[in-house]
Amino acid sequence: MHGYEFDEATAVQSSGDGCWRGEVHDGWDIGGNANGGYVLAILGRAMRDQAGRRDPVTLTAHYLAPSRPGPVEIEARVIKAGKRFATLTGEMRQGDRVLLSAIGAFGDAAEGDFELASSGPPELPPREQCPPRGPRNGGVPVALMSKIDVRLHPDVSDFSESGQVGNGEISGWFSFADGRPNDTLALLLATDAFLPAVFTLDQPAGWVPTVELNVQIRGVPAPGPLRCQFRTRFIRGGCFEEDGEVWDSNGRLVALSRQFALAARA
Amino acid sequence: MHGYEFDEATAVQSSGDGCWRGEVHDGWDIGGNANGGYVLAILGRAMRDQAGRRDPVTLTAHYLAPSRPGPVEIEARVIKAGKRFATLTGEMRQGDRVLLSAIGAFGDAAEGDFELASSGPPELPPREQCPPRGPRNGGVPVALMSKIDVRLHPDVSDFSESGQVGNGEISGWFSFADGRPNDTLALLLATDAFLPAVFTLDQPAGWVPTVELNVQIRGVPAPGPLRCQFRTRFIRGGCFEEDGEVWDSNGRLVALSRQFALAARA
Repeated sequence: MHGYEFDEATAVQSSGDGCWRGEVHDGWDIGGNANGGYVLAILGRAMRDQAGRRDPVTLTAHYLAPSRPGPVEIEARVIKAGKRFATLTGEMRQGDRVLLSAIGAFGDAAEGDFELASSGPPELPPREQCPPRGPRNGGVPVALMSKIDVRLHPDVSDFSESGQVGNGEISGWFSFADGRPNDTLALLLATDAFLPAVFTLDQPAGWVPTVELNVQIRGVPAPGPLRCQFRTRFIRGGCFEEDGEVWDSNGRLVALSRQFALAARA
Repeated sequence: MHGYEFDEATAVQSSGDGCWRGEVHDGWDIGGNANGGYVLAILGRAMRDQAGRRDPVTLTAHYLAPSRPGPVEIEARVIKAGKRFATLTGEMRQGDRVLLSAIGAFGDAAEGDFELASSGPPELPPREQCPPRGPRNGGVPVALMSKIDVRLHPDVSDFSESGQVGNGEISGWFSFADGRPNDTLALLLATDAFLPAVFTLDQPAGWVPTVELNVQIRGVPAPGPLRCQFRTRFIRGGCFEEDGEVWDSNGRLVALSRQFALAARA
């Protein structure tokens, strides 16, 4: 049986004592650097499996160096194995370079109804009416777009190429190109799979490195594509946040994300 | 010269090799458990000093056990000392118990104007017209209120005692009781110094343990009290987020915070 690409590209194998081996696969990159959500999924999977729990519940990673295709080594350490959550630190390396360092809680992500939901999913036209995220990002090829199917709200789809100015918001649909069902690991990828919301603003284009990405997994996604929304409200001293919401096909929030990132240099 | 209480209560001393000693002081607690923002300030200060940088810039901690008055040991490890930021992990212990585990980036917090600010500070009546946060929290004494001066927006001040139902939002003023000026370490405390925004909702009252607290320091605060706003939008499976904004007296955003926390049991 042929597996799904995301499962193969995030596979990890224990080498004992909290050490895991994985591989950054080719084709999940933007201009040669592996996507931050993709590498977080590799690290999160190793931490989750080390924890022996079903899902990441809240996971925060710092990005220390760009990830290139090739083997990675992961160290996952259980700090506390609680009844509800296990808390772990994780570090991912390529040779001597630390790529990511993370901390997270793992357990069972929520299923079922909200006790409180103060807002709903972003309003999006049907997926068929939303153009795909382009294969280039400010001139840089987005190989990642061969692996995932990201459809942008028609109002925002053209900013990165057209030079029009938007309002710091991006929304659209997320699914895998090969039809892999979404699960809680996929949510880690989805939160970093869109073009940066700052690209809708009158800001210099270019690489906007993620310093930190925090993802709260708020539910197990129902089958079907995800509705995603990202927003940057404040830029100061060349630093900005990007807040994301991911909603499943039942209209339930399944992830909240927040990045701390650096603006491109003018 | 007599120092300020917060400086004394967050003092840390290096014992070499990334190890630091500090002490959880009495009086910064809620029902005997030290406030999460206060203990984060101790840990953040040790990590900051280990980094040799001026400010925490973005810091994320997981809370593993309640902190009680007494000595703590901190291990702060530099993962990467970059030009702009140093990235560190930190762990704080009391004896065998890990209290907090954290990861953060340290450097110079922003000063000066925003490149983008999509919203402004919360609208608050003058500080004198805002009642102080009460000395009790769902029946539990809030000793912390002897150290800080938190004034709540009159519309929300009474929820925890009156049983009225609000909308998941809390706002108000923050300063130190002894007049200590606010700095970037104080912002770590401010983001957890208010009553939980969920207390404004029709939810069971009681202890709502923080699993994770992420604080982005977006600027060095100007002199004067801080305007703070906290909001919980989603509760699912007994878990909720609390998003915070902290603004200085010049009307500039100085911190964004996000918690992942557990609702009180019914």
